[in-house]
Amino acid sequence: MEKIEIKSIQEQCKLAKESHIKTGKLSTDIKNLALRKIAVSIRENINFVIEANKKDINSAIKSGLSGHLVDRLTLDEQRLLNIANSVETIASLEDPTGEIISDWTVENGLRISKVRVPLGVIGIVYEARPNVTIDAAALALKTGNAIVLRGSSSAMESNLALVRLFKEVLFDIGIHPEIVQLLMDTSHESVIDLIRMDDYLDVVIPRGSSTLIETVVKNATVPTIETGIGNCHVFIDKYANLENAKKIIINSKTHRPTVCNSAESLLLHSELDAAYISSVLSSLTSLGVTIKGCKRINELYKNSHLASELDYYTEFLDLRLSVKMVDSVEQAIEHISKFGSHHTESIVSENSNSIQMFIDNIDAAAVLVNASTRFTDGGEFGFGAEMGISTQKMHPRGPMGLSELTTYKYIVRGNGHIRK
Amino acid sequence: MEKIEIKSIQEQCKLAKESHIKTGKLSTDIKNLALRKIAVSIRENINFVIEANKKDINSAIKSGLSGHLVDRLTLDEQRLLNIANSVETIASLEDPTGEIISDWTVENGLRISKVRVPLGVIGIVYEARPNVTIDAAALALKTGNAIVLRGSSSAMESNLALVRLFKEVLFDIGIHPEIVQLLMDTSHESVIDLIRMDDYLDVVIPRGSSTLIETVVKNATVPTIETGIGNCHVFIDKYANLENAKKIIINSKTHRPTVCNSAESLLLHSELDAAYISSVLSSLTSLGVTIKGCKRINELYKNSHLASELDYYTEFLDLRLSVKMVDSVEQAIEHISKFGSHHTESIVSENSNSIQMFIDNIDAAAVLVNASTRFTDGGEFGFGAEMGISTQKMHPRGPMGLSELTTYKYIVRGNGHIRK
Repeated sequence: MEKIEIKSIQEQCKLAKESHIKTGKLSTDIKNLALRKIAVSIRENINFVIEANKKDINSAIKSGLSGHLVDRLTLDEQRLLNIANSVETIASLEDPTGEIISDWTVENGLRISKVRVPLGVIGIVYEARPNVTIDAAALALKTGNAIVLRGSSSAMESNLALVRLFKEVLFDIGIHPEIVQLLMDTSHESVIDLIRMDDYLDVVIPRGSSTLIETVVKNATVPTIETGIGNCHVFIDKYANLENAKKIIINSKTHRPTVCNSAESLLLHSELDAAYISSVLSSLTSLGVTIKGCKRINELYKNSHLASELDYYTEFLDLRLSVKMVDSVEQAIEHISKFGSHHTESIVSENSNSIQMFIDNIDAAAVLVNASTRFTDGGEFGFGAEMGISTQKMHPRGPMGLSELTTYKYIVRGNGHIRK
Repeated sequence: MEKIEIKSIQEQCKLAKESHIKTGKLSTDIKNLALRKIAVSIRENINFVIEANKKDINSAIKSGLSGHLVDRLTLDEQRLLNIANSVETIASLEDPTGEIISDWTVENGLRISKVRVPLGVIGIVYEARPNVTIDAAALALKTGNAIVLRGSSSAMESNLALVRLFKEVLFDIGIHPEIVQLLMDTSHESVIDLIRMDDYLDVVIPRGSSTLIETVVKNATVPTIETGIGNCHVFIDKYANLENAKKIIINSKTHRPTVCNSAESLLLHSELDAAYISSVLSSLTSLGVTIKGCKRINELYKNSHLASELDYYTEFLDLRLSVKMVDSVEQAIEHISKFGSHHTESIVSENSNSIQMFIDNIDAAAVLVNASTRFTDGGEFGFGAEMGISTQKMHPRGPMGLSELTTYKYIVRGNGHIRK
C-alpha cells in the first residue's frame, strides 16, 4: 500500500462521500467477509500495531499524559485480540440494512415500503482510545456507511496502523478503501471544520468530554448525535426492597465510576428508616465514595458534605455522589426533570404505582426499575456492539447498535399513478 | 378567558416546558375528547375567526402583499370547516404514544421494552398560513407534545383567534392550556432566539422558504427537522411505458408547481425516440412549462433554453423545468446524487434491473417507481395528517405523521440486577 499522503479535511470528507457513492450497495456477505478478514489481519499483525502504539505511548509519557490516559491509549496482545474478536462479533450480527420496516398498499394501488438503509457518511470525533478506531470503522462497514475518523493526535501512530490494516483488506476484497478516512489534521480547529462539512457528511458523533460534546452541538451544521453525558440518578422509594436498593446504588456508583452510565446522584425517600439510610451511606463511604448531601442528609449522616446546586447538575465521573432526600415519587421526578441529563434513571421500589409514575414521567433514554444504572449499554441490551450511547431524543436514542446507524427510505411502486 | 399578555420568547418556551411536565401523560381518550371539542368550537366560532382574519387581510393588502399570499392567508367558512374536519381526523387516528416498539428479555432476566413516547416541546416556524396553526397544535396534542408556534406577523390576528379557541377547550377540559404557546414576538430575530432555546425545546421544525430553513439549520442549537426543499427528478428510462411516462412528468410538474413534491427536473434516456422526447416537451410547453435543457435537448427541441449548472440545483417552485439527456441509469443516478435534495426521485421504467439499481442507489426520503412525485405526502401515504415532509436522514425522514412526532425510551425491569 502507498504511503498515506496528507490531505485536507475537506478532501478527505469528499473522498469518503465519493467513494461511498461509487461503492454503492454492498451485499451482507461481502461486508462480513471483509470484517472476518480484518479480524484475521489484526491477529496476524499484532507486532506491527504494538510497535506503532509504542511510539504514541513514548510521546504521551514525554508530554506528561496521566497514567490513566496512557493506560487507555495502550494496546497489548490481549487488547488487540479483543479488538479482533469484537470485529468478528460485528460480522456475526444480523445486517439491519435492507430490512422492510413496514409495507402497505394504498387504496389507489400504490405499494409503499419503508426500508432500512445506511445513513451515508458518518463522522466521529473521539479521544485517545485506538480500539474505538476499529470498532467505529467496523460498525460503519457492517451498516453500509462510510466513516471519517477524527481520533486524537496522541493516538495517531496506532490509528494509522489499524486503519492501514483495515483499508488493505477492503482493497484486497474489492471494496473502495477510501470509505474509511482517518483525518490527518487533528488540530483543535479540525473539529470545527469537520462538523461543518455539510456537503459530505450525513451525521457527526462526538464521543468524549462534555466540553467536546458541547462544542460540537453548538457549532455543528451537520446533524449530530449527542452521546454520553450521564447525570444518572438512583431513587430509593419507601417501598423499596432494602437489600436490593443498597446493592443497586453501590453497583451503580462504584462498579466503574468514570463511565456515563454510572450513578452521580442518589435520591432517598424521607420515610426510609434513618438507620437504613446511614447504613447505605456508610457502605458507600467505606468504598471510597464522597457523599455530598442536602441538609437533611447532612444532619442524618455526619460523614457527608453539603451539596451545592451545581453538585446536583454535575456528572462527577469519579467517586463523588450527590444525595438528596425527597418526600415522594413526585418530588424525585421533579428533581430528576430539573437536574437529569436524559440518559438513565433508576427507581428501586416494589410498589407498582410508584414504578408506573416514574416510568411515565421520567424523560430519559432508559428508565430502569430495580436494576443498576450500569445496564444502559449496547452489550447489556443484547445489541452485540455499540457506537456510543445517545442522550438526545431524536432518533437514535440510547445505546447505538447497528440499527441505530441506519435510516430508512420509502419505496413507492405505482403503475403510471398520477395525482388527481 | 383573560386577555393574552405579552411575554418574552424565553418566558413562553419556559411556560410550555413547565406546563408539559406538570401535565404529565394524558390518556388517549382525553386527548381525543379535547380534539373533538376543538373541532366543534371552530365550527361554532367561524364568524369570530373570520373577523380576526379580516384584520390580517386588510393589513396585508395595505402593505402590498401579493394576491397569492393573501389567498393563503385568507380564511372563509369552507376553509374553517376543513380545518375543523382535519382536527376530527386527527382525533380519529391511532395514538402512537405508548406503543411497545419491541420488547425482549436478556439472559440475565432483565426485561427491556422500547416504548414510543412524546418528543416533549416542539417549536415550529411557519409562514402566513393560519391552517398550520391548528394542524400543528392538534398534531402536537394528539402525540402528547407541547408546542411553541412561531407564525407570521401578517397572520397574527387569525392565529390569536384560533389559538384562543384551542386553549379555551384545553382549559375547560382540565388540560394545562399553556402547553400551546403562540409567540407574540414575530420579529426576524425571534426565529434566532427560538432555535437557541435548548433549555426548553426538544426540537424545532422550520416550515417555509429555503432561506428560512437554511437560517434555522445554520444557527440552531436545538435539534431541527429540516423540511421541504424538494429538487425532485423524474427519470424516463429507455424501457419506460411511454404513455405512463408522459402522464407522470406532466402530473409531477404541472399538478401543483409551487409545492415541494413537484418535479423540478426531467432526465431522459438518450435512447428514447427523438419524436417521443419532442412530444413530451411540447406537451409540457403547451401547459405553460419553460424548458431549460442541456445542449442535446436544445438541439432536439428548439422551444427550449440552455440550462445552467445553477438551474439543475434550483427548486423553481414554478413552471420552469430543467431537462437533461443521460445515457444510462447510472448517469441518471449520478446526476441526481449531485443535484438532488434527498426529497423524492421517480423512475419510469418497465425494466426490473433499471428499477432495482435506481432504488438501491438513490439516496432520498422517497424513491418512486412509475408514479408521480406528487405522491410523497402524508395524506397520500395514508398517515391521515402531516406536520411537513422531512428531507433529513436522521429520524424522522419523509412525510411526518403522528409517529414521527414521537421518540422512544427503553424501560428496563430487573429484580435487584447489578453488573458483574
